[in-house]
Amino acid sequence: MIERVKVAVVGVGNNVSALVQGIALQRATGNLVGVRRTVLHGLGVGDVDFTAAFALSREKVGRDLSEAIFMPPNNFPRLIDELPLSGVTVRRGLTDATEVERVAGELAGAEVVLYAAPSGRRETAQAYAEAALRAGAAFVNITSDAVARDPQIMRRFTEAGLPLLGDDLTSQFGTSIVHHALLHLLQERGLTLTSSYQVNLGGTEDFRNLVENGNTKMQSKLNALTAHESAADKVEIAPLGYLPHLESHKVAHINIEAQTWGGTPVSLDLKLKVHDPSGGAGVTVDLIRMAANALRHRHAGYVAEATPLLKSPPGTSI
Amino acid sequence: MIERVKVAVVGVGNNVSALVQGIALQRATGNLVGVRRTVLHGLGVGDVDFTAAFALSREKVGRDLSEAIFMPPNNFPRLIDELPLSGVTVRRGLTDATEVERVAGELAGAEVVLYAAPSGRRETAQAYAEAALRAGAAFVNITSDAVARDPQIMRRFTEAGLPLLGDDLTSQFGTSIVHHALLHLLQERGLTLTSSYQVNLGGTEDFRNLVENGNTKMQSKLNALTAHESAADKVEIAPLGYLPHLESHKVAHINIEAQTWGGTPVSLDLKLKVHDPSGGAGVTVDLIRMAANALRHRHAGYVAEATPLLKSPPGTSI
Amino acid sequence: MIERVKVAVVGVGNNVSALVQGIALQRATGNLVGVRRTVLHGLGVGDVDFTAAFALSREKVGRDLSEAIFMPPNNFPRLIDELPLSGVTVRRGLTDATEVERVAGELAGAEVVLYAAPSGRRETAQAYAEAALRAGAAFVNITSDAVARDPQIMRRFTEAGLPLLGDDLTSQFGTSIVHHALLHLLQERGLTLTSSYQVNLGGTEDFRNLVENGNTKMQSKLNALTAHESAADKVEIAPLGYLPHLESHKVAHINIEAQTWGGTPVSLDLKLKVHDPSGGAGVTVDLIRMAANALRHRHAGYVAEATPLLKSPPGTSI
Amino acid sequence: MIERVKVAVVGVGNNVSALVQGIALQRATGNLVGVRRTVLHGLGVGDVDFTAAFALSREKVGRDLSEAIFMPPNNFPRLIDELPLSGVTVRRGLTDATEVERVAGELAGAEVVLYAAPSGRRETAQAYAEAALRAGAAFVNITSDAVARDPQIMRRFTEAGLPLLGDDLTSQFGTSIVHHALLHLLQERGLTLTSSYQVNLGGTEDFRNLVENGNTKMQSKLNALTAHESAADKVEIAPLGYLPHLESHKVAHINIEAQTWGGTPVSLDLKLKVHDPSGGAGVTVDLIRMAANALRHRHAGYVAEATPLLKSPPGTSI
Repeated sequence: MIERVKVAVVGVGNNVSALVQGIALQRATGNLVGVRRTVLHGLGVGDVDFTAAFALSREKVGRDLSEAIFMPPNNFPRLIDELPLSGVTVRRGLTDATEVERVAGELAGAEVVLYAAPSGRRETAQAYAEAALRAGAAFVNITSDAVARDPQIMRRFTEAGLPLLGDDLTSQFGTSIVHHALLHLLQERGLTLTSSYQVNLGGTEDFRNLVENGNTKMQSKLNALTAHESAADKVEIAPLGYLPHLESHKVAHINIEAQTWGGTPVSLDLKLKVHDPSGGAGVTVDLIRMAANALRHRHAGYVAEATPLLKSPPGTSI
Repeated sequence: MIERVKVAVVGVGNNVSALVQGIALQRATGNLVGVRRTVLHGLGVGDVDFTAAFALSREKVGRDLSEAIFMPPNNFPRLIDELPLSGVTVRRGLTDATEVERVAGELAGAEVVLYAAPSGRRETAQAYAEAALRAGAAFVNITSDAVARDPQIMRRFTEAGLPLLGDDLTSQFGTSIVHHALLHLLQERGLTLTSSYQVNLGGTEDFRNLVENGNTKMQSKLNALTAHESAADKVEIAPLGYLPHLESHKVAHINIEAQTWGGTPVSLDLKLKVHDPSGGAGVTVDLIRMAANALRHRHAGYVAEATPLLKSPPGTSI
Repeated sequence: MIERVKVAVVGVGNNVSALVQGIALQRATGNLVGVRRTVLHGLGVGDVDFTAAFALSREKVGRDLSEAIFMPPNNFPRLIDELPLSGVTVRRGLTDATEVERVAGELAGAEVVLYAAPSGRRETAQAYAEAALRAGAAFVNITSDAVARDPQIMRRFTEAGLPLLGDDLTSQFGTSIVHHALLHLLQERGLTLTSSYQVNLGGTEDFRNLVENGNTKMQSKLNALTAHESAADKVEIAPLGYLPHLESHKVAHINIEAQTWGGTPVSLDLKLKVHDPSGGAGVTVDLIRMAANALRHRHAGYVAEATPLLKSPPGTSI
Repeated sequence: MIERVKVAVVGVGNNVSALVQGIALQRATGNLVGVRRTVLHGLGVGDVDFTAAFALSREKVGRDLSEAIFMPPNNFPRLIDELPLSGVTVRRGLTDATEVERVAGELAGAEVVLYAAPSGRRETAQAYAEAALRAGAAFVNITSDAVARDPQIMRRFTEAGLPLLGDDLTSQFGTSIVHHALLHLLQERGLTLTSSYQVNLGGTEDFRNLVENGNTKMQSKLNALTAHESAADKVEIAPLGYLPHLESHKVAHINIEAQTWGGTPVSLDLKLKVHDPSGGAGVTVDLIRMAANALRHRHAGYVAEATPLLKSPPGTSI
C-alpha cells in the first residue's frame, strides 16, 4: 500500500481551506466531486497528510489547522459538518531571512512544501524555498512570485536532487480557460476572429487586491489568452470590477465576434459564474501528488507534466 | 502548377451559392475569410472549377450557375458585387433511375461529383452515386441520406478505384460543436456535470423542414453531444423553434451547470448567433479537395481525413 | 383592531403551499420577503386565516392543511422549519353538482372562497362558485377556467351583494411581465421594434401539462404581450420546452431587436430564472384581501383594483 | 402652416451629425425611424432648420455643416447617400468671454441655440448662454455643464422672457433607462432586491473621455438608478471599460438578483448593445421643439415637460 504524502503548507488562506476540507470530505465519503484525477501516480486525493503549517496572522497562529482555516478574512464555506482536528498547530511563519534555519528545522519530515501565501513577496517565497532545500523537501509554488522560473533557484534544486514545481496556479475552470478554448475552437474551424472582449467581476479580498494591482494581472490574462494565437491585437480585457455583493463568486462576460466563409458574421456571448477560491484546490492537489511522485522517484528539478497546471512555468518572463 | 479540380454539383441551394460565391471572391481578392485550410493537398480554394450543375426547379434549370444561385427560395446574401458568369448552364436533374445513363454522360470530365440536393431522398442520392461511378468520378455526399455509409455502395466505389466521401456535413461552427467543446473542457478539467440544455432557433426553409421532422434531428444532436461523455442523461435539448423573423440566422442558447472541487457550483450561459447557410461551404471545399487528391493518387473508397468533417461517416447507423 | 380574514381554500397544490407557509413565516418573523403590499385595506399578510380546505387526492384528504401541502406531487420547498398545525382538516372536494349543497354547508363562516384547483374543469369551478354564493362568501378564482368572466355568474354574485374576483392570476414576476415592460419601454422612448422572441423552459409537472397543451398557452402569452402594441406581428414565441433537470425552476430567454433614430440598431438579450410555484402567492394574498375588503364594505361583483393582477378579467373572451 | 424652427448649433460632433442627417432623412423619405413624437407642438422632425453653427476644430470651421459633420474624430455613419448642402458655413466658436458680443451678433435670427459642445467647460457654456440672451434666443443645453441648473442664469432668462432648457440629455434608450425600468418593475411587483450590477463598455472618443473621468460618471449613473429606490446600497456599477474594437457601439451587461414570496430567488441577466451617438438625437429634437414652442408662446424660463428628457434639470446639485 502506498504511503501518504507528508505536506507542509505555507499560508492558511481560502485555497488551503478548500484543500484541507476537500481532502477530509474525500476521506469521509470516498467520493469527492470536481477532481481532475481520482488517482494520480497511485495517490488518491485522501492520501495527502498535513504535517506542518505556517501563517502570520495572530488569529491563525497557535490554532489547529482545521480551525485556523475558518478565521477571517477567510470566507470559503464549510464543505463538511464536522471537520476533525488535524493535529497540526499553525506556527508563526518567517518574516526575514534570519529565520530560514528555524523554519527548515520545523519542516523536518515533510516531503512537499506547498507555498500558498499571498502573492507579492518574492523574497519571502524564496526564503521558504531555501528552507525546503535545507530540509530536503520538494517545493510547490502556487503564487505568482518568481521561484521555479528563477533559473538560479531551479539550478540549486536540481543539483540537490529535489523537485521544484511552479509558478502560479491555473484555475481549474475560469475565464481564461474558457475564453482560450473558444478562441482555439474558432481557429481550428477556420473562422477569422473580428474582435473579442472579456469582463471580470469578483467580490473576494483576493479580487480586491487584484483590482488594485490591475494592470499586471490584465497583461498576464491577455498573455494567457493569446499565447498561441495570431490574434493578440483583437482581444480586449475590460478593467477588473470589484463588486462586494458578489461575495465569494467570480463572474465573467465574454464576447466573441468572428467571420466564417465569405465574411458572414458569427457572434458568441457567454456568462460564466464560479465560486472563487475552490478553483485552485483541484489543481493544487495534483501538483502535490506530482511533486511527491517526483521526489520518491528521484526526479530532480522541474516536472513537465505540471505545465498545463501553471501560468508561469520555467522559461516565462519574471 | 497544379491542375484545377473539375466539380459537377447536384443541387443549387444556399450551400452551393455560398460555395460558388466564396470561390469567386477568393479568386478576385486572393484573401477569402473563414477558410479552414488555405491550401490543402496543394489545392487552394480558388482551384475549384465547376463543370456541370443539376437542379429540378424551373427557375434554375437553363440558367448560368452564377445566376441560378440567386433564385428563390435561395436567400444567401451576395458576397461579391459582380459575379462573373460561370459558363455552366444548370441542367435538369434526374427524377428516376432510368435517367442514370443520361446523367452519367453529362458528368463526363468531372473529377468530383458534389451531392448537395435537399436531404430525404435516398434513392435519388444513390442514383447520382451510380452515375458518378459510371462516369469515373469521385463522389462527395454532404446530405444526411445514406450513401457512403451504405456498405454495398462503398464496396462498389472501392472496387472501381474511386473515392467516396460522406455522409452529412458537420457545420463549420454551430451549436453542437460549441456545446461539445465546452462539455469536453469541463470533463478535462475534472468538473462534474450537473445538467445542461440547448435551445435551437432558426428562420430558414431548411430549419422549418427540420422542425417538422424534429425528433430525429434532436436525437442526432443528442448523440453528437454525448458520444464520448458519461453524461448523456444530463443533457437536454429543447424543441427546435422556427422563428421566421430570424431569416437566414440560427440562434442557440446553451446552459451548463456543473460542480468543481467539493461540489461548489459553476454556471455557464452562452448565446451563439450564426448565419445559417454559410456554415457548410468552408467544410465542403475541404471535402472536394480531399476527394480530388484521393482520385489523383488512386486512393479508392473512404478517406479517413474526412471524418472530423462528417456527421455520419461509414460505420454509423443508417 | 381589524379582524382576520376567514378563507376557505379549494385545491391544495404548490400555490397553496407557498401561501400557507408564507403567511406562517410572516407571523413568525414579522418580515416576509417578496410582498407587494405589506398592508392592504388595513390587512397584513398575517391577517389571513384558513377555516376550510378541499382536495381530491387520497394523500391530502383527512390531513391537517399544514401537512397536506407537502404531499406529492407538490414540491414547493419548506420555507419554515416548524410549521404549526392549522387546525383545518382537508375535506373531500366535490366531484359533481349534487354535492354543492354539502360543500356550501362546509363553507359556513368563510368570508372568502379561494379557488386554486388545477385548471381545465370549468364545471367544477362554477359548482364551487355556486356553493360560495349559497354560503354568502366572496369568490376568488385564480385558475384560467371561466368564472368571473362568465357574465351570468357575475350577475348572480352582483345581485347577491357578493364580490367575485377572477379569472387567472398573473405571475408576480415572470416572462410576460418582463417582456411586456421592455416592449413598452421601447415604444415609450420612440424606438421601432424590428423583431422579438421569447423562449420558455420549465421543469415542473404544471409546465409539462402546459407543453402538452402548448398552442393555447402560446397564443395567450402572445396576447398578453401585444395587447397594447401595434407590433403583434413582430413578436414570436418559441415552443415551450419541458426540461426535467430544471426541476421547480422556469427559465426564459428574451431577445429584442429595434431601431433608434435614423434606423441605427439596438439589441437586447435577457435571461430570466425564477422559482416556479412561488410566483402566485404574493398576488393571491392581495386578491384575498381585496375580496375581504369588498365583502366587508358591501361592494358586490367585480373590484376594479384587481385588474392588474388578473390575466382574464371580466370582458375578456372565454 | 407652421413656420420652421431656426436653430443655431454650438459644437459639431457625432450628436449633431445624427441630428442633421436624421432631419434630412425625414424630409427625403417622410418616415424617419426611431422618433419619440412624430409631431410635437405642431412641429414635425423635418421642421427644424439650421441657421448657424459653431465649432473650434480647423477641419470643421469654414465648411458647410453637411460636410463638417463627417470630419474626424466624428464617426457617426452616413444615414443618407446624398446629403444636400445646408447653406450654413461653420463659424469659429468663442474661446473667451470677450467674444460673446461677436457671437451674439452671429446668432441673430436664431430662435433656439442648441449647446452641444464637449462637456467639461462650464465657462464656455455659460458664455454661449449669455450670447443667446443678448440675441433673444431660447437656449437648450444638452451637456452636463451647469447652465439651466445655475439659479442665477435661470433668473436672467426668466426676466428676459426667454426659455432655458437643460442640463444633460438622457439617452433615448441606454443602460440607465433599462436598468431603472427593471428595478422599478421589481419594486412594483413586490420583489426584494438582493443585489444588482451594471457593466458599461464602449469604443468612442466620448466614451474614452468618460473613462478618464470615471468616478463622477459612475456616481451620476448610480444616482440616476437609485433616485426613487430604497435600494441604493444594493446596486453596484463596475468600472467603465474603453474597448476600441467596439467602435461606435456601447454594450452593457446588467445583472439583477432578487427574492419573491418567502425568499425564493429570481435572477435576471441582460445584455444591451446600442449604437452610441444616435441615442441623443431623438431626444434633442424634442427639446428643440419644446424650446421653440415656449419661445413662440412667450413661456419664459424652464419648461416642465422637458424633465423626463434631462439628467440634471433645475434643482439638482451642480
